[in-house]
Amino acid sequence: MDKLRGLDNDASMITEVATLEVKPGLESAFENDFDLAASIISGSEGYVSHELLRCVEKTSRYVLLVRWETLEAHTIGFRKSPEYEKWKELLHHYYDPLPTVEHFDKVHEGPE
Amino acid sequence: MDKLRGLDNDASMITEVATLEVKPGLESAFENDFDLAASIISGSEGYVSHELLRCVEKTSRYVLLVRWETLEAHTIGFRKSPEYEKWKELLHHYYDPLPTVEHFDKVHEGPE
Repeated sequence: MDKLRGLDNDASMITEVATLEVKPGLESAFENDFDLAASIISGSEGYVSHELLRCVEKTSRYVLLVRWETLEAHTIGFRKSPEYEKWKELLHHYYDPLPTVEHFDKVHEGPE
Repeated sequence: MDKLRGLDNDASMITEVATLEVKPGLESAFENDFDLAASIISGSEGYVSHELLRCVEKTSRYVLLVRWETLEAHTIGFRKSPEYEKWKELLHHYYDPLPTVEHFDKVHEGPE
């Protein structure tokens, strides 16, 4: 566990958090296309890891967490790359509305 | 990394996600009290790990991620415990509005 923890603790590391509202009925297709899209984001410079989570209470809602080495790795490196156009093409048509994306610093984690 | 991954992949594991809107100006006090409160949640049966994240774009917004072995470890085990009353007492007065909490299953993660 210590290795990952060491990586996660990098002071400059950023977590991108996006709540994704998928059009009801398209959840399976979205998850399949996300599998393809994952290889796009995971190949981007400064990408660390990601998780796609599906809501128990509202099953068309997902949360995407992406860990980046720096904020700019996402906002500039990924978003201004040609690969981002492919990512959008694969995924954006599933969303209604389009997601708001925010970035977070880790201030506490456990177990200690 | 494999060890943590093995743990994370437990099919029944649940991620609690709460967006916390802290009253502006009280962020430092909240973070200090969260340090105390963390020992309450991390002692609860079925608790796996947690992260408190602070938003870059809106610095009074936080996201709390808590991994639980099962949904019920949170909704019954923790929420119906006497310790939850202490947790609320320490933290709830910082929030406006009170947070909505949802639970998520992991459907994808990377790197593969």
